Amino acid sequence: MYTYENLHHFIKNIFCKIGCSPVDAETVAEVLLSAELRGIESHGMLRISDYYNLWKAKRINATPVITIVHETPSTAVIDGDSGLGMVVGKKAMLLAIEKAKTVGTGWVSVSNSNHFGIAGYFSMMALKEDMIGISMTNANPLVAPTFSTDRLLGTNPIAVAIPAGNQPAYVADFATTPIARGKLDLMHKKNKKAPLGYVQDKDGNPSEDPNILTQGGAILPLGGDYEHGSHKGYCLGSIVDIFSAVLSGAGYGPWVPPSVAYLPVKEKNDVKGTGHFFGAMRIDAFRTATEFKKTMDEWILTFRNAKPAKGQEKVLVPGDIERDNEERRKKEGIPIMPLLVEKVNQIATELGIENIK
Amino acid sequence: MYTYENLHHFIKNIFCKIGCSPVDAETVAEVLLSAELRGIESHGMLRISDYYNLWKAKRINATPVITIVHETPSTAVIDGDSGLGMVVGKKAMLLAIEKAKTVGTGWVSVSNSNHFGIAGYFSMMALKEDMIGISMTNANPLVAPTFSTDRLLGTNPIAVAIPAGNQPAYVADFATTPIARGKLDLMHKKNKKAPLGYVQDKDGNPSEDPNILTQGGAILPLGGDYEHGSHKGYCLGSIVDIFSAVLSGAGYGPWVPPSVAYLPVKEKNDVKGTGHFFGAMRIDAFRTATEFKKTMDEWILTFRNAKPAKGQEKVLVPGDIERDNEERRKKEGIPIMPLLVEKVNQIATELGIENIK
Repeated sequence: MYTYENLHHFIKNIFCKIGCSPVDAETVAEVLLSAELRGIESHGMLRISDYYNLWKAKRINATPVITIVHETPSTAVIDGDSGLGMVVGKKAMLLAIEKAKTVGTGWVSVSNSNHFGIAGYFSMMALKEDMIGISMTNANPLVAPTFSTDRLLGTNPIAVAIPAGNQPAYVADFATTPIARGKLDLMHKKNKKAPLGYVQDKDGNPSEDPNILTQGGAILPLGGDYEHGSHKGYCLGSIVDIFSAVLSGAGYGPWVPPSVAYLPVKEKNDVKGTGHFFGAMRIDAFRTATEFKKTMDEWILTFRNAKPAKGQEKVLVPGDIERDNEERRKKEGIPIMPLLVEKVNQIATELGIENIK
Repeated sequence: MYTYENLHHFIKNIFCKIGCSPVDAETVAEVLLSAELRGIESHGMLRISDYYNLWKAKRINATPVITIVHETPSTAVIDGDSGLGMVVGKKAMLLAIEKAKTVGTGWVSVSNSNHFGIAGYFSMMALKEDMIGISMTNANPLVAPTFSTDRLLGTNPIAVAIPAGNQPAYVADFATTPIARGKLDLMHKKNKKAPLGYVQDKDGNPSEDPNILTQGGAILPLGGDYEHGSHKGYCLGSIVDIFSAVLSGAGYGPWVPPSVAYLPVKEKNDVKGTGHFFGAMRIDAFRTATEFKKTMDEWILTFRNAKPAKGQEKVLVPGDIERDNEERRKKEGIPIMPLLVEKVNQIATELGIENIK
């Protein structure tokens, strides 16, 4: 087990060392550790080596000049200047929140960014302002649209955070596919089969091989097959792609610059990085925050107190599991796999800074 | 086959006769026939009897005074005064569009409304303004959250319409469940089994009975079961519910006033009808419409020209099937099932107006 403080110190050191400002390095630490605390290890410390390798390949700019390209009272497009996604994303979400303060809502589409960590971090930034927060991003092209074998979309997550009163906030944060890429990697490492409905092979046949992505296979959209609504998952993934990249001018669909080794960087001159989309809606732009939160508490209790199906213990409200993890890990510390500790310590040694305490 | 004009005339007559203004009756005809043209028969003429019965039960107000309860430059809450959902929805979407003209985006949450027809109609209203249109609604509580047997959500559809240049617009319009209720009814009528993954029985066991909803069963969220991401479908359905009803003060979740006979109207004094949520985003609030449409054309062609999987003919872009239907039916006429013609003619006779030509 590691303490939040020690890991924060370690991550901050790494990103300061590659040239980030202390404030930006703290943002990276905060977003990665938010994933670790919430139990989404696939988006935590595990990503440090990806970011480090992209920085070494000069695909991440540690000192980006992030600019507003265009804006109206409720919207903006931001160019992230190839910065770390967490740094660019936080700035974009803060701008959405500022706009919501003035005209009720704020919507910011982002180009020239990189992988931003967990989408939920940004949507949750809105909560303390009594706003609903929305965030989404496109990602490595590994998902085939319904009826196709071409990998044209990412797992393109959507996160929505909604304030409540006495109850903890509602926080949904989910990929628009049945399974996230990181979880397939984990199945492969553990020598497990993937359930049918997660992936297909390069010809579009159903597959149970969690490693099929390295052989031209694809993740399926949420729904799995057409009969079970995969075209709806395809709609969701493509809406995220268009809001994140066509609105901002970032790389869309197959042109999202890949961050996994088995996807080649495609030749296209004008690709402007990864795209994100953020939204903030002030609750009292609709009804008083007091009224809304009272109703939201009722909503949450209605769902949490619903009758469990046979064999199930309880019904969950989106965010329950992650919040439980967060509370426990804040007390007990954060478990990090020994192999991962070794890997990030190697990077620290390469950079000439101290290892994890 | 029936002509658009004759059906329009017929529907307008019915809704004028129950007290709607000619303009409102035209709106109803337009929305219902948009569903018929696009091949979504479950949301077309079939619904006339539902609306008529709700009007007879004094649950639909033919002459609503629709009011803006609260607003900011980019948001509003509208009270639909128990009007027909199509009439209330159109007014709300027009308001969202007006706000987008001024501050870039507009977002309107609606209470005291009723079933509004196809969600896609309202999102497509934004297209001719060079805006992205978004619409969603809550609905009859027939969907159980993951791990539960309680029916707390509707099939809660989301529609997003996105303008393109030379290509036809992108139009996604989908329930947040694997299957819409109307399609289950149709399977039952045809004596067909439902594929596993659509519904569960009253104890939460998988079921193949398309009529299970009349026996306490529930539709599953998109994803089907937990292993295949039904919790993500549950997130989507609940986000639609909260945006449509908790933001506006309408009936949420289990309190949505039912429009199917086998769901009893629950006792709760302060339920304010069905809720909807609409959004409009001006394209040039992000980047010039010319640039956006050029990229959107490229996006559409990338997906439409993707390699089909073995045994598939082509890859579709959301909206392709419905647009093909619309083009064909505009030329060839609209097919209406004889039994349905009989049913709506009975209503016409009851009201003392002429039958369908």
